[in-house]
Amino acid sequence: MAVLKGEQHVQVLRRKGAALECAEDQVADEVAVALAYNGLSHVVMMATPDNLEDFGRGFSLSEGIIERPEQLYGTEVVQHPLGIELQLELATECFEKLKHRRRNLAGRTGCGLCGAESLEQAIGTPRLVRPAPLPSADAIENALTQLRKHQQLQRSTGAVHGAALCDESGRVRLLREDVGRHNALDKLIGAMASCCIQDSTDYAGRFVLITSRASFEMVHKCAAANIGALVAVSAPTALAIEQASRAGIHLIGFARQGRHVIYTTTDNGDDSHVA
Amino acid sequence: MAVLKGEQHVQVLRRKGAALECAEDQVADEVAVALAYNGLSHVVMMATPDNLEDFGRGFSLSEGIIERPEQLYGTEVVQHPLGIELQLELATECFEKLKHRRRNLAGRTGCGLCGAESLEQAIGTPRLVRPAPLPSADAIENALTQLRKHQQLQRSTGAVHGAALCDESGRVRLLREDVGRHNALDKLIGAMASCCIQDSTDYAGRFVLITSRASFEMVHKCAAANIGALVAVSAPTALAIEQASRAGIHLIGFARQGRHVIYTTTDNGDDSHVA
Repeated sequence: MAVLKGEQHVQVLRRKGAALECAEDQVADEVAVALAYNGLSHVVMMATPDNLEDFGRGFSLSEGIIERPEQLYGTEVVQHPLGIELQLELATECFEKLKHRRRNLAGRTGCGLCGAESLEQAIGTPRLVRPAPLPSADAIENALTQLRKHQQLQRSTGAVHGAALCDESGRVRLLREDVGRHNALDKLIGAMASCCIQDSTDYAGRFVLITSRASFEMVHKCAAANIGALVAVSAPTALAIEQASRAGIHLIGFARQGRHVIYTTTDNGDDSHVA
Repeated sequence: MAVLKGEQHVQVLRRKGAALECAEDQVADEVAVALAYNGLSHVVMMATPDNLEDFGRGFSLSEGIIERPEQLYGTEVVQHPLGIELQLELATECFEKLKHRRRNLAGRTGCGLCGAESLEQAIGTPRLVRPAPLPSADAIENALTQLRKHQQLQRSTGAVHGAALCDESGRVRLLREDVGRHNALDKLIGAMASCCIQDSTDYAGRFVLITSRASFEMVHKCAAANIGALVAVSAPTALAIEQASRAGIHLIGFARQGRHVIYTTTDNGDDSHVA
């Protein structure tokens, strides 16, 4: 397999009205990424092969395999003929916990939600996040404008999602892209952790903007990463709203120029869903 | 948990310019669905809680757990406080194969691609599909027009994907919706199987239209279900193109009124990628 950089050129037939012409097109790479912890193969994800160290760190945090970035000692990216292996080195206590969790699942486990075999494991109680302010309308609009400029891979391929950390004025501070919306958010969470940008003094007023819908798992990952405000370009699901309300996350959907919808906020005097 | 029907009403704050008003919004339900085969818990998926029998049948087919619809004897939908359990009854030979596959993975398996722990398992050689004609421009345009009329849940919530089986004139014959694009396709595959619509005489000229991007797993599912032509409203990935080419599937992306892009076709004299 050639070294992948996120996109490649392919020959296509382009149809416009009655005309059909040969053309060149840029498409997003997608590759099987196998995550292995301390030599133990854990999961295969289909992902965009860039920022894979951020991905490994963010996935480990958002899936609760580590609780703090420093519990991941190192990451090695190994190219295989059919994909990429991410070799992650965990602190002993995390690896023991992971092995214990896997032993409990042995013979029963499948796929879907990571490590979540049963419904109880799938829909747990989220951790309550550090309180954050509701993003202002101006900040959301600024962030949306900035977002487009930063989404390089999306601009050339039209096939990837973005997740951005924005400051209180809406300036995009970090952005990650991926063919998978969950992966884009994991990469951002990993990048935030490596920048120590989760530090509470630095974090005030910040929010995460995603180019996709807000499903349960997106909110679940934000709760795990202590993200207090999530703004989605598209719709949330009912379960995502419920989860955001329980975690104390401001959840905003359908964020467009001049309008958006606030689904949950902690700014109206209680800590739950808007009344 | 209340019985879910695919959508529910929530109270929101709607911001338009400087105005902020309380409003009611319809949002898509999302629920943890645990699939259990012959009493053995296999996987939890986040899904829209409708057409779950189609989902179980289609997932079983597209993941290769069964090879023919009649190997699934029955499906029961059981409501739990935190989600839904789909109890699927498999033919003995399929269940033995599934248990064998799971034993091989025991202690190593995680999640992501279903049952695919290693990269080799994740990126297998797809089966070659039954040859199908390239959908005509008129058929694609008709299907796009029809699609919007059939997407009831999407119209009210803006949060779900659709997968439709269309005939040679572009008429939508079957449509399924879900918060997950993979699930929408699995539901369609299951519905097609139950309608015996995969019968070769009835199948000629038909294609599947999806409202999302075409990633590797979407093409992989089409190959497993013997679908010869896949039309996506959005972009394909490079790996999806490669997989479609190997399976002999016509892959069309960016399908809009008046234009689309043909990424792979078997109509130009060879069985692979457009030259």
